Amino acid sequence: MKTPGLAHVAYLLGNKGEAIVVDPRRDIDEVLAAAREKDLVIKFILETHRHEDFVIGSGALAKATGAKIVSGDHALFGQSDIRLRDGEELDLIGLRIRALHTPGHTPESTCYAVFLPDTPGRAWGVFTGDTLFIGETGRTDLPDREKTSDNARLLYASVHEKLLPLGDQALLWPAHGSGSVCGGNIAERDDSTLGLERAYNPVFVKSVDDFTRAKVAERIPRPPYFSLMERLNLEGGKPLAAKPGEVPSLPPNKFASESKQGLVLDARDPEAFASGHLPGSLNLWLAGLPVFGGWIADETTRVYLVVPRAVDVEAAVLHLARVGVDRVSGVLAGGFDAWRDAGMSIEKTGTMTPRELHDAGDAVAVLDVRDDQEFETEGHIEGARHMYVGYLDEHFEKIQPALPRHGRIALVCSVGHRAGLATSILHRRGFTEVANVLGGMTAWGKLGLPKKQCPERSMTTMDIEGERR
Amino acid sequence: MKTPGLAHVAYLLGNKGEAIVVDPRRDIDEVLAAAREKDLVIKFILETHRHEDFVIGSGALAKATGAKIVSGDHALFGQSDIRLRDGEELDLIGLRIRALHTPGHTPESTCYAVFLPDTPGRAWGVFTGDTLFIGETGRTDLPDREKTSDNARLLYASVHEKLLPLGDQALLWPAHGSGSVCGGNIAERDDSTLGLERAYNPVFVKSVDDFTRAKVAERIPRPPYFSLMERLNLEGGKPLAAKPGEVPSLPPNKFASESKQGLVLDARDPEAFASGHLPGSLNLWLAGLPVFGGWIADETTRVYLVVPRAVDVEAAVLHLARVGVDRVSGVLAGGFDAWRDAGMSIEKTGTMTPRELHDAGDAVAVLDVRDDQEFETEGHIEGARHMYVGYLDEHFEKIQPALPRHGRIALVCSVGHRAGLATSILHRRGFTEVANVLGGMTAWGKLGLPKKQCPERSMTTMDIEGERR
Amino acid sequence: MKTPGLAHVAYLLGNKGEAIVVDPRRDIDEVLAAAREKDLVIKFILETHRHEDFVIGSGALAKATGAKIVSGDHALFGQSDIRLRDGEELDLIGLRIRALHTPGHTPESTCYAVFLPDTPGRAWGVFTGDTLFIGETGRTDLPDREKTSDNARLLYASVHEKLLPLGDQALLWPAHGSGSVCGGNIAERDDSTLGLERAYNPVFVKSVDDFTRAKVAERIPRPPYFSLMERLNLEGGKPLAAKPGEVPSLPPNKFASESKQGLVLDARDPEAFASGHLPGSLNLWLAGLPVFGGWIADETTRVYLVVPRAVDVEAAVLHLARVGVDRVSGVLAGGFDAWRDAGMSIEKTGTMTPRELHDAGDAVAVLDVRDDQEFETEGHIEGARHMYVGYLDEHFEKIQPALPRHGRIALVCSVGHRAGLATSILHRRGFTEVANVLGGMTAWGKLGLPKKQCPERSMTTMDIEGERR
Amino acid sequence: MKTPGLAHVAYLLGNKGEAIVVDPRRDIDEVLAAAREKDLVIKFILETHRHEDFVIGSGALAKATGAKIVSGDHALFGQSDIRLRDGEELDLIGLRIRALHTPGHTPESTCYAVFLPDTPGRAWGVFTGDTLFIGETGRTDLPDREKTSDNARLLYASVHEKLLPLGDQALLWPAHGSGSVCGGNIAERDDSTLGLERAYNPVFVKSVDDFTRAKVAERIPRPPYFSLMERLNLEGGKPLAAKPGEVPSLPPNKFASESKQGLVLDARDPEAFASGHLPGSLNLWLAGLPVFGGWIADETTRVYLVVPRAVDVEAAVLHLARVGVDRVSGVLAGGFDAWRDAGMSIEKTGTMTPRELHDAGDAVAVLDVRDDQEFETEGHIEGARHMYVGYLDEHFEKIQPALPRHGRIALVCSVGHRAGLATSILHRRGFTEVANVLGGMTAWGKLGLPKKQCPERSMTTMDIEGERR
Repeated sequence: MKTPGLAHVAYLLGNKGEAIVVDPRRDIDEVLAAAREKDLVIKFILETHRHEDFVIGSGALAKATGAKIVSGDHALFGQSDIRLRDGEELDLIGLRIRALHTPGHTPESTCYAVFLPDTPGRAWGVFTGDTLFIGETGRTDLPDREKTSDNARLLYASVHEKLLPLGDQALLWPAHGSGSVCGGNIAERDDSTLGLERAYNPVFVKSVDDFTRAKVAERIPRPPYFSLMERLNLEGGKPLAAKPGEVPSLPPNKFASESKQGLVLDARDPEAFASGHLPGSLNLWLAGLPVFGGWIADETTRVYLVVPRAVDVEAAVLHLARVGVDRVSGVLAGGFDAWRDAGMSIEKTGTMTPRELHDAGDAVAVLDVRDDQEFETEGHIEGARHMYVGYLDEHFEKIQPALPRHGRIALVCSVGHRAGLATSILHRRGFTEVANVLGGMTAWGKLGLPKKQCPERSMTTMDIEGERR
Repeated sequence: MKTPGLAHVAYLLGNKGEAIVVDPRRDIDEVLAAAREKDLVIKFILETHRHEDFVIGSGALAKATGAKIVSGDHALFGQSDIRLRDGEELDLIGLRIRALHTPGHTPESTCYAVFLPDTPGRAWGVFTGDTLFIGETGRTDLPDREKTSDNARLLYASVHEKLLPLGDQALLWPAHGSGSVCGGNIAERDDSTLGLERAYNPVFVKSVDDFTRAKVAERIPRPPYFSLMERLNLEGGKPLAAKPGEVPSLPPNKFASESKQGLVLDARDPEAFASGHLPGSLNLWLAGLPVFGGWIADETTRVYLVVPRAVDVEAAVLHLARVGVDRVSGVLAGGFDAWRDAGMSIEKTGTMTPRELHDAGDAVAVLDVRDDQEFETEGHIEGARHMYVGYLDEHFEKIQPALPRHGRIALVCSVGHRAGLATSILHRRGFTEVANVLGGMTAWGKLGLPKKQCPERSMTTMDIEGERR
Repeated sequence: MKTPGLAHVAYLLGNKGEAIVVDPRRDIDEVLAAAREKDLVIKFILETHRHEDFVIGSGALAKATGAKIVSGDHALFGQSDIRLRDGEELDLIGLRIRALHTPGHTPESTCYAVFLPDTPGRAWGVFTGDTLFIGETGRTDLPDREKTSDNARLLYASVHEKLLPLGDQALLWPAHGSGSVCGGNIAERDDSTLGLERAYNPVFVKSVDDFTRAKVAERIPRPPYFSLMERLNLEGGKPLAAKPGEVPSLPPNKFASESKQGLVLDARDPEAFASGHLPGSLNLWLAGLPVFGGWIADETTRVYLVVPRAVDVEAAVLHLARVGVDRVSGVLAGGFDAWRDAGMSIEKTGTMTPRELHDAGDAVAVLDVRDDQEFETEGHIEGARHMYVGYLDEHFEKIQPALPRHGRIALVCSVGHRAGLATSILHRRGFTEVANVLGGMTAWGKLGLPKKQCPERSMTTMDIEGERR
Repeated sequence: MKTPGLAHVAYLLGNKGEAIVVDPRRDIDEVLAAAREKDLVIKFILETHRHEDFVIGSGALAKATGAKIVSGDHALFGQSDIRLRDGEELDLIGLRIRALHTPGHTPESTCYAVFLPDTPGRAWGVFTGDTLFIGETGRTDLPDREKTSDNARLLYASVHEKLLPLGDQALLWPAHGSGSVCGGNIAERDDSTLGLERAYNPVFVKSVDDFTRAKVAERIPRPPYFSLMERLNLEGGKPLAAKPGEVPSLPPNKFASESKQGLVLDARDPEAFASGHLPGSLNLWLAGLPVFGGWIADETTRVYLVVPRAVDVEAAVLHLARVGVDRVSGVLAGGFDAWRDAGMSIEKTGTMTPRELHDAGDAVAVLDVRDDQEFETEGHIEGARHMYVGYLDEHFEKIQPALPRHGRIALVCSVGHRAGLATSILHRRGFTEVANVLGGMTAWGKLGLPKKQCPERSMTTMDIEGERR
């Protein structure tokens, strides 16, 4: 039960007609339907930590099913029915569950090992929350960036002392898959074991010092919505407010007038957006909504949606709700086509191929909007300015001096989605000659065009984080 | 957009990106989804009358969409934004709508003729509510059975004076199709015109006196939930309370203990029910829930469901909600199979083929549970007792003396669904030798077994209605 | 059961567990599923004429169900089991069917009136094939453009002498709805009656001479695939060859090499196409495939598809199969994104808003690709060249001299879909400065920009048809 | 991608846009759709062995996708493109695949270990075919019952020498889950590792002698369709013949006459069947079709279906096709209800609760139709006759003498499904007083009714197998 976009994984573990749900999200309908289909009665809800990247659904699910919420006993866990100390065991739905307190990602982080009745001495698997991922560990900079080093050592110890003893055979059931903002470099596989991780996961193949150094060097963006999530989740999350079906469809003229009070998000692909879009709209492709929705909007923002197909409304509203963006106030009836055919005002940005960009040389300024780590370690175009797309709007004054007011600007990310968002942000701020580089650094690399490895000096997470505190 | 079971038809009429909804029901999600899919913005809601057979959704739909509610100007209409006098016209979504006050079914009943811009002189079609159906007219006994005759004359006049002048070409868009409790004998077709109705509909081919006599002779059951519907609908209906997905699944032992406080409805087919079911449960087949749910339960009843397949829960809960039965409190997890395999207590009723019943002669008492009209006009088995299934539980004392306490009783309806319900009602009241006649009077007739046409004296709607007042 | 895109309507008419299918199309799965769901046994297949715009499924459906094919007795009907003479009646599935020979659209065209048992004197409805549509009649230029006038008179007589006597009340069940290439100006409604048509349909409100003159003046494009359809349909159609699921997914490099042997169709929206697409690909938006697929490809063309979403493959392949384009040989795995990210070669066309085009004045040449009738009667931009999009590639040499080789060219249609196709055709032929006008003449008109009503001299259907013969 | 009923698991393993399919089944549409949805190009098909329990789809899938078939190099493998020797490795889709020849279940059985690029020394997982299941091993009696002991030793060696060295961390990807006829006691979990299996799987916790003794003692039924499967699979399987959508719906009278030439299978639940069914029909519940379809029908049998709901037809036809039963010749239109309401002839069997059976004592003969192992090891009712349901019809003469011709007979299995089939088999053979025990031995046990552990002497697999050779 993956959350597309957030790469969050909720688990429904059934045995003999009963079930445990691990880390449910806010829209509980899906897990309820899955349980019904398999004829499972949900009895317990396990929380691995408070979560900072999405609104949890423990409270709503407990209310709907009468299930008990199980957590660790750290104070940072919100309301729960059963609080387990480190090492404490419980028999739930015919399985033995052992809580393992594994601080590091967050102070309260708790893993749950699961033992089958037949093999009491060997763990079947372990719900690792944000402590251990496939090929990665949870970020350790969240509670306090200053303490990243301490947290990295804590996490290292948690993994080695609490998880490793479970044995090579233990299956890994982490809270996130590839693409999450909770860990830097999660593998794309769904299945792994502790034994396999031992062979290649940095937390196992590195020494504690090397591991800590690497964690400190990591610079993963920290979305502004994380603090809202933490506050809500301390109270057991928040039931889903938006009923996607009830978001009103607005015809072009009404959409135009109402959306002046809010933010227009255009969820089409960047190519379609570039050829024509509503003035002032931001381009946030469908699958990017749950990640970047929380960067550019919050619980107070009135959001107006332009979706590729009418059927996408439900997904779009859910994506936003999962990161706390609840006030979706309208959808453009008939989509961009209706706007276009009504002769409403249209703006365009542009696209460039990597080859065109290369051939243009200095005539085009390049702004790379990948995160710091991608920019620095995967190489970038010589002379490129850099600022992570998530900071672009909020910290625009920092990058503005580096951009030519009237010249051409090429926006680059890994393939073109984030660059599409960046293009729209710049265009809304009055830069008219902006273009999205098609295929981004991925295509640039495939074409064998030259990359620079050591970083240009540019806006970094660090600078902005410093600012923030 | 038909309501299965209730045979209610809601209409979504779109033009140039905007839409009118006629007589929406309580679960507005479906009409919202249909409008979204067709890129229609719902602007107006037309009400043809207050409705007595289901909870309307005008209020909820208006709230969700901002649409205006349009009604006639009679005091029996609830809250509405635009009240039209008889003959008054309005241009909505590019179409001309003319209100026609057509009392008879109810005092406030209003039809709406629709004219296209190209053919202002000729109606395209007419929303006839419960005034004129395909092959039938609305019942005229509802507001006050004593005034059936007066109402029949009113309805006759309404149809002839208000609808007939619209012309042969006008399409008929009634509020009910075949199977409704709002009219006796509605045809199974979906499409008709005034010109076609003129050729065979009793309201056209009979004189006013003959028509009135026929209406007075009609004896359509009046479900007890009608008065609740009328009260709710005067306030614009009631938003959907139950979230079908959140009705808890209960394992057999928990289901057994909790359901003692309520009523167990088993929605399997009568044949499956006969071979084994939960003690005390009533058998109400899935498609029968919206009709008979309102006869055997009301807004205060805690209902516990046994469904054929897990996926049926949502439909079952919606069916009941539409007739105001909101307190569905649990679903048997794993269905009857789980109950059976857990060794829980099981009861059986039985089945008989028509041939077996015929051959048994006087050894088996027959109770026919079709409505009065079916019993009298379509023929019945000689010697059969008769009481409409809807009255069976509430007025049991009236039929009890006619039934052998310890002998065998065969329950008959048209094919076996209502007889299944009746079988379960009798069984719950302690009659152990009850059997559902497979295929009912339909199969009986196909086999050429003897029928009696003039009625046995038995419990009738009339007697019970008399009682009620 | 509408065919999206072709606006073809097949009918499934059920009664008492049996069904008649009228004019089935090639992919019979859908009608089989609908019949199964309603528990109808398909007994008869009615053909109204041979059809020229899609491959029929009579043969395949008869083979699968054992149903009998019913047709008129004209020699142009293919194989059928029952051939009815004009006026002949037949009782099928409890309904009376009367054949009415109604030549005009084609010589064999036959309508079928349906009578209910209750109203033997009045038709319930009539399957009008391509003879009478809602607000329109079938085109009369197909069998032989020279005889358009004679055919118009024939059709006029057929409608007045055969259909009109059925009465105002008769429902209209035509073979096409709005958007078909078989009639010029079909209304968007689904429901009508003869009585309503009498009030505004040209065939009723005009005299025979005026009607004939109007038909002769009509210039509806004639797609080249019509002759293939006619040939196939004479043999009862052709079972579906392509299994959409089995069309191979090809990764970018393999797609690039294999598609050199065929034609790449990009089914994305024109805006997305304009910003980046495969070199040499044609842009044919998803819903346009069934109409224009037959103009630019035929049964021998190897087609390679770029689809907006992976789930669209099935629809795309079916759309093409319906017009006889059977050799879909590959789908781009991962869609355009995969191509883009692989650094493969990308080309761009452009977009213009109507306002930009207007402000550009003579600096931009305009090519209007709507059909002759739209161009002439709905107004066009002063100075615009004109050629119907369907002829653009085949008769390119006729329009080429009118186009500036190196200057900017704006492509215009009604909203931008056909102009998208035209843009791609020109681009493939080496015109680099081509742009699709967003919102086309619809947006142009909404903005109040100036239109010219009397035609510029340009390529017309007539010229090309003349050529063809 | 599980096959419901057969508990067969096919795998689709994707990496970087390409995919390997392991052991595809005959209806390849599903795997094609899954690959399309994930944008994977299927490049290779791995076969673990010839399979005896379902028709494979390697040939059809290779034809549809151009994928190469990979197998071991034993002569019992059919046609394949790449034949790997034991220990040989191959780099496919960016993963290293190592073939491991693991005879025992069958002589050619081959497992495939998968190594990630990051962990070349440690297997990620292993496709174990029918060699090693979760909690079980493949049966060793199939090629030749006389050699069960030799094969068990072979399998033991294969697992210990070839699989065990892959390491505790290796994920297990077997060809079957719980419920398969290819292994006796497969666990219900989906996920396991070699390390976990080491802790409890008999092949690891027993000595080779104990293991072999246990295998020899195993008596799993051997369905007659296995030999057909083996023959077909040697040729790469057989493309799907039946198009489920095209199986004709037959109204009751036509169904009655046509089905005389074949076998009527009623896929409703046993309770519904007991209350009324078509004379001579066999009761094979929907989920049991793929298992028992192959016991009671074969490629030459004309099968006529009665399904619970119209939508079940497709699943039912596919279920049968997977075991080679291709000639489904009709479906009862309208299901049992239509038959019943038409007054067609109906027969009844009966049901008993375990309590009723217990209280009846010797008045009722008991026939237990579970397999030998269940009968012997899980306890049975004292005095029960026994014959496995799969042999009941074919070897009826062996059990007949033990059954009372005119007395009452109770049929027992684990919960009631197989007993439903047995009930129908006996009823068709003229035993009129047969009843299905509701909840079977499961409910009997839950009620604490007395069981006998050491076997009554009765028909056994062994006897019949002996016969067969």
